[in-house]
Parts: sequence; C-alpha cells; structure tokens
Amino acid sequence: MKDKDAFVHPTALVETQDLGEGTSVWAYAHVMAGARVGRNCNIGDHCFVESGAVIGDNVTLKNGNMVWEGVTLEDEVFVGPHVFFTNDRYPRSRRGGSPDMPPIEKTCWLVPTRVKRGASLGAGVTAVAGVTVGEYALVAAGAVVTKDVAPHALVKGSPARWHRWVCRCGHPLDFTQSVATCSECGLRFEKKGQGITLL
Amino acid sequence: MKDKDAFVHPTALVETQDLGEGTSVWAYAHVMAGARVGRNCNIGDHCFVESGAVIGDNVTLKNGNMVWEGVTLEDEVFVGPHVFFTNDRYPRSRRGGSPDMPPIEKTCWLVPTRVKRGASLGAGVTAVAGVTVGEYALVAAGAVVTKDVAPHALVKGSPARWHRWVCRCGHPLDFTQSVATCSECGLRFEKKGQGITLL
Amino acid sequence: MKDKDAFVHPTALVETQDLGEGTSVWAYAHVMAGARVGRNCNIGDHCFVESGAVIGDNVTLKNGNMVWEGVTLEDEVFVGPHVFFTNDRYPRSRRGGSPDMPPIEKTCWLVPTRVKRGASLGAGVTAVAGVTVGEYALVAAGAVVTKDVAPHALVKGSPARWHRWVCRCGHPLDFTQSVATCSECGLRFEKKGQGITLL
Repeated sequence: MKDKDAFVHPTALVETQDLGEGTSVWAYAHVMAGARVGRNCNIGDHCFVESGAVIGDNVTLKNGNMVWEGVTLEDEVFVGPHVFFTNDRYPRSRRGGSPDMPPIEKTCWLVPTRVKRGASLGAGVTAVAGVTVGEYALVAAGAVVTKDVAPHALVKGSPARWHRWVCRCGHPLDFTQSVATCSECGLRFEKKGQGITLL
Repeated sequence: MKDKDAFVHPTALVETQDLGEGTSVWAYAHVMAGARVGRNCNIGDHCFVESGAVIGDNVTLKNGNMVWEGVTLEDEVFVGPHVFFTNDRYPRSRRGGSPDMPPIEKTCWLVPTRVKRGASLGAGVTAVAGVTVGEYALVAAGAVVTKDVAPHALVKGSPARWHRWVCRCGHPLDFTQSVATCSECGLRFEKKGQGITLL
Repeated sequence: MKDKDAFVHPTALVETQDLGEGTSVWAYAHVMAGARVGRNCNIGDHCFVESGAVIGDNVTLKNGNMVWEGVTLEDEVFVGPHVFFTNDRYPRSRRGGSPDMPPIEKTCWLVPTRVKRGASLGAGVTAVAGVTVGEYALVAAGAVVTKDVAPHALVKGSPARWHRWVCRCGHPLDFTQSVATCSECGLRFEKKGQGITLL
C-alpha cells in the first residue's frame, strides 16, 4: 500500500505502508514491509530498502542502493549509485547447521549507521557499520568510511580521510582566514574547534 | 525447474535444474541454466548466478551479487551485498569485428576463484580472478583481494592485507600467547606456522 | 521501440528508439528514452542506461552497470560488472525545499566522462566525473580513476596509478627495449614520449 500521491513504477515492489507523499519508486526497486520512507524522495531503479530502514524527507537514492535495517538516512540526504551500507561487523552465514558446523545465532550483531541531514555519499562508497556521517558532509566516490565524518567535511580514499570543507550546496570552501564565503551560494562559515559552523 | 521445497519469488528467474532443497531466490534475481546451487541457501534480490557457477549448501548471498562461471562458493559461505567476482584478468569486449579491430577470440581466459567453507566477504569486496579465500576467513567491506587469503584471517584494505585472526563465529581472536580462546563462542585455536588451527 | 534485429529480454525495459542492430538487452535491464546504444552491444542483467548516455558499437556492458547522462562509451569498450560512473563532482539531493533548506538548483553540474575505443574497465571500478580513459587502456578491478588514463595503460589502485602497458588484446607488454611484441597476438609497439604507439 502506498500514499495516494506517491509514484510506484509498474515493475517495482512496494510492501511498506509508510511511503511518503510525492515519493517516487522506480523500476525493479523493492521497498519491504516495515521500511519507513519520507516525503518527496526519489528511490532509483534496482534499489532495495529493508524492513527497519528509516529514510527521511527529500532524500535522493540513486540506482542500485541497498538500505538495510539499522540504517537511518535523514532529510535531504543524497546517496549516489551502488553505495554499500553494512550492519554487521563480523558477518557469517547464519544458515549453517551441518554436523560439524552448528548454526551461528548471534543476537547482538546489529550495528546502526546514520547519515545526517543534507549529507552526500558518492558512487560506490562503502560505509562500515556503526559510522555517523555528519550534516552536509560529502564522501567522495569510491571512499571507504570506517569512522565518523565531521559535518561539512569532504572525505575521500580508503580509509576515508578529511580532505577539505564544503558548503551546504556542496561547493568547496576556501578558508584563507578563519572565515569563508561560498563562491557558489554565498553562505558564510567560520572555523570553530575541529570543525566549521554557519555564520 | 526447481526443487519442490525451494522458494522462488514471482519476479525472479530460475532456469537451472540444480537448485537445492530449502533454498530461497528473492526478487529480480536470476539463476541461469547450468548453475549449481546447493541446499538451504539464500539468494538475495537482484543477484545473478551464471551458468557454470557452483554454490554449496547453507550459503548466504546478500543482494546484488553476481557469481560468474569459474567461481565456486563452498558450504556456509557469506557474501555481502555487491561483491565483485571476476573471471578474466585482461578483459576485452569480445564483440569486435570492425575493419581495423578483428574480434578477440581468447580461449584460455577463464581464471577460477574459490571461497572456502564458512568464509565471509563483506559489502563491496572485489575478488580478483584466481584467488582462493581460506576457510572461515573474513574480508572486510570494500577490500580488494588480489592474492590468496589464509584460513581464519581477517584482511582489509586495497590491496587487502592481513589484519588479525578471527574465529569460526567471526569474532576476533586475541592471541596473548600462542593459544587463544574465542570470547564469543569458546572455541580454542593455536598458532601454527604462518596460520592458526583449531584445538 | 527497437531495431528489428535487437534482442530485448521479456523482463527488460527499452524505451529508447536508438538501439542498434544485433544488440542484446538482458533481464531486468532498463534503457531510457533518449539513450543511444550502437550495434552489436551486450547490455547485461540489471543494467541502467540513462537518457543522454551514448554507447558505441560492439560494447560489452557486464551486469549491474549504470551509464548516466554525460557518459560516452566508444566502440569496443568493455565495462565489467558494477562499474560506477559519476557525472557530478559535488552532488546534493536536489529535492530540498524545507523551510531552512531551499532547493539546490545548480545548473552547470554535469561533468562528462569518456571511455575511448577498446578500453576495458574491470569489476567495481569507480570513474570520477570528468575523466577520459584512453584507447585500449585497462583499469584493474576495484580501482578508483581520478584522472585521465593514457592509451594502452594498465592502471590500478585507489587512486588508480600506472602499472604497465597492455596490448590491444589486453595482454601485458614487456618492453625490454624501446620496442615490444605482444606474446599473445603479435602486435608490435614502441615507446614514444610518455606513451606507446602501434608500429
């Protein structure tokens, strides 16, 4: 079932009852029962949203993403194509049960991941279970995020490391002094402690 | 055709006759004719299993995996989402045939890959053609495996390098001496040569 | 609509009118209206080709690839499974519009990427927006391409760096002197400036 103003492609599967107004779900995508998807989102082709995943409003999920139980994407998050979330640090096949390999029944394996408001994850990023990506951070394509990312930080590489600061609009900021004005949108920031804040 | 006790999602394509009892194939997944899939496996959404691929019993294939001809996954293997297997070290489009580009007809390009019993590959791992991943090894999310992985080794990075030892259950082992007891499941191991063995 | 001699799998969606003769589009793949696909191509399962993408003749797209607007693949290109193209250096969700987050309306975000004739991209490669991959280059599995790749170069790693030279057929070349003969197909090359040329 879906909200009356959502769009679901004929080849998609939407089993949740929690799909917000104005949200589109494209070809071959699958949103499971129990997933929560906000308003005005775009869920691209071949995406998978698992029961228990939480997606805010105005989120863009490019194609081929898998959002698992334990993953929360806040409002205005951008997820590039084929981003890898994980929710288990030491995964094993739980389907064991052969004579010398008893089934593994771990109970506390679920490790949550959170991408905060307005942040962007580039194509093919891997986000290791347990990390938090800060507001308006930008993770470069192909990076492997193994620890928390500061708000407004652009990180890249494997493992992902701080590279520079970016604006809300995504544009890089040049801090010649302790203050920077975005050359794209005009917002102003100042350095504060280890991070930056909007003036 | 499929075993009477297998489950195939209505949107999935199963063309093989070799699908074991208790195995599930989920939405938009495609198992080709000539692929062999064992019992009690879980083949996630958007997976592709090629003719000639061999998958054992109790294997978990998370979503979006592609298992090619030449790839063997032994019993109890766990494959995280979007793991990349390859079967050709120097791939070229074989569809050539334009005047100055004759079709490339290589005959011996197929390089086998084997993931041994109980091993786990994390999300977005790349396994280069020709590698063997040892029993109960654990390859961290996003790693690129370019050479063989020892049994029980946890490897990570690009290229993947040894990081520590893990138990059958996946939990890290602390070798303060030459012997370690898993704090999660109680199994005991000892160091032996370059590797570790179960006591 | 499609060319009379193209093959489209019953589960695929082909909305373009520009699909060349002899091309095959496999299960759950989606080629949008306005995409251009040449002759004799192979578009694997779960691929997505966006409006505005341009694909030449004799191209092999392995499974799960996404080819965006702004990406051009020339004739005889090979794209391994799950390769990540991008077309925006500083992506943000464009679906904003909440009180304190006005919609981001960037106009000049599209950055083109070109893969030149006969080049190959291995499994899981990330190609950052704006790069050109030269003729018959070979990008190793899992590499992250952040700058242009020379013709016939084999690059690998993150970021991708030059490793050796390869022949048109993909085979590595051994330059003991300034000239090399391919041991696989017999083509001869010489070093010239920073690159190599066919004799």
